[in-house]
Amino acid sequence: MRVALLIEYHGKNLHGSQFQLGVRTVQDELEKAVSAFIREPSRVILSGRTDSGVHAQNQVAHFDCSDQELDLWRFAWALNGILKNDIAVKGVQIVPTTFHARHSALKRQYVYRILNRSQRSALISDTHHFVSYELDCKRMQKAAQYLVGTHDFASFKSTSTDQGTSVCNVYRAELLNLGEGLLEFWIEANHFVYNMVRIIVGTLIEIGLGERSPESLQTALQGCDRNLTGPTSPARGLTLVSITYPEEFQLFPTLVPFRQSELGTLEDVKG
Amino acid sequence: MRVALLIEYHGKNLHGSQFQLGVRTVQDELEKAVSAFIREPSRVILSGRTDSGVHAQNQVAHFDCSDQELDLWRFAWALNGILKNDIAVKGVQIVPTTFHARHSALKRQYVYRILNRSQRSALISDTHHFVSYELDCKRMQKAAQYLVGTHDFASFKSTSTDQGTSVCNVYRAELLNLGEGLLEFWIEANHFVYNMVRIIVGTLIEIGLGERSPESLQTALQGCDRNLTGPTSPARGLTLVSITYPEEFQLFPTLVPFRQSELGTLEDVKG
Repeated sequence: MRVALLIEYHGKNLHGSQFQLGVRTVQDELEKAVSAFIREPSRVILSGRTDSGVHAQNQVAHFDCSDQELDLWRFAWALNGILKNDIAVKGVQIVPTTFHARHSALKRQYVYRILNRSQRSALISDTHHFVSYELDCKRMQKAAQYLVGTHDFASFKSTSTDQGTSVCNVYRAELLNLGEGLLEFWIEANHFVYNMVRIIVGTLIEIGLGERSPESLQTALQGCDRNLTGPTSPARGLTLVSITYPEEFQLFPTLVPFRQSELGTLEDVKG
Repeated sequence: MRVALLIEYHGKNLHGSQFQLGVRTVQDELEKAVSAFIREPSRVILSGRTDSGVHAQNQVAHFDCSDQELDLWRFAWALNGILKNDIAVKGVQIVPTTFHARHSALKRQYVYRILNRSQRSALISDTHHFVSYELDCKRMQKAAQYLVGTHDFASFKSTSTDQGTSVCNVYRAELLNLGEGLLEFWIEANHFVYNMVRIIVGTLIEIGLGERSPESLQTALQGCDRNLTGPTSPARGLTLVSITYPEEFQLFPTLVPFRQSELGTLEDVKG
């Protein structure tokens, strides 16, 4: 039986999503928790990797389990008991074995959050990248429009990796100015190359500071050269917001249901 | 010379706002930082006290200083260097000595944030109170309306205190349902009695759970008896959002200004 999970995590104390020996990662923490409940070794597959420090609101994963009678509701509660506070399971669902968290994904959406004011924040420093020089949002908004469409993002790929195509279809790329110095860069694409969002944001920030033109982003897209783009902005500003799968899988129409009352029994809610 | 400060803090590791021997409080941390800069002992007066664990987005404070030449811009940068990460100064402004952070305040506004879903969050557990039983928002919204106007909030006052009037003018009391289980209770009043917002929210949650009627909140207002209200909800959900002062003081029309460029000197921005 294949089970899909809908997951939240706070990246600050996690060394990214993918298994690495000797450090806490999302995959490793999930595998330990799932295995402890289903009492068999388990491989958890995530929709894609997120870097060390990156957060997720709706990461999706799946695993296979030989127990055909798995009580999903009890499983969700147990998992959130076993997992430390920075990883939480919001949804659990039985899926057909044709579903694959990574291969079935059609689109992924990220948000990168910036705090642009002169003084640091005491409240949102874990989730926002603090930029203490004034940014010109209009310039950044103009530049962001060049990203929409099908482009080769080779200039926006970390040079430390060299795998697969760097051609991506970008469906949304938008910089929102929420006021009081809060900026959000939203991007949705079929796939992302390594460090792509963080390099895009690093480049947009240089544009906002007046250090390069909005048009230079278009030149960078055409040039396919990492030297044409800005620095990789810090991981803490980045959050994986959502992943879109084909409708046929009807993924997570609801989260784990509520208990019905304080006096209810497990049987009341399994119904 | 009197100086006003606009402050943010994250309450998790602070023992409230008011000075207490041997623990970290907002007042104590600010006094140490201000004194270190102005090189004289300093008493910092806050607009009002917030409990241990409560956050603030726009707390206001003032202090007096004999240096008439205080460089406010340099002062703000120094303060945010000296203060630990959970307290930040957003604004500094010279005010007339007729201004008093507590006595001049006309209104205070708070928000109380609730996460209502069956499973805990990995992202917002520091700022939201997690309620894992389903709440009926409509019942809570109906009850909240009874709070608006002038009432004696004696039933909503912690029994551990007995000071001053418990009559408050409530200008706004509103429960917002933001979707995905996120609820916000907003309240603005001329003053608040001790633990008032947290006891109101504890009572609203009982109403949302169906344990008491929306009308019971009206009865509680009339009865002036702490036994008529619900439990005190946890501090972590509560944030002081803003304080209103008479327009004549023109308080914080702008935050600390930006540096003008990476190559600029202090002189460029002192203006």
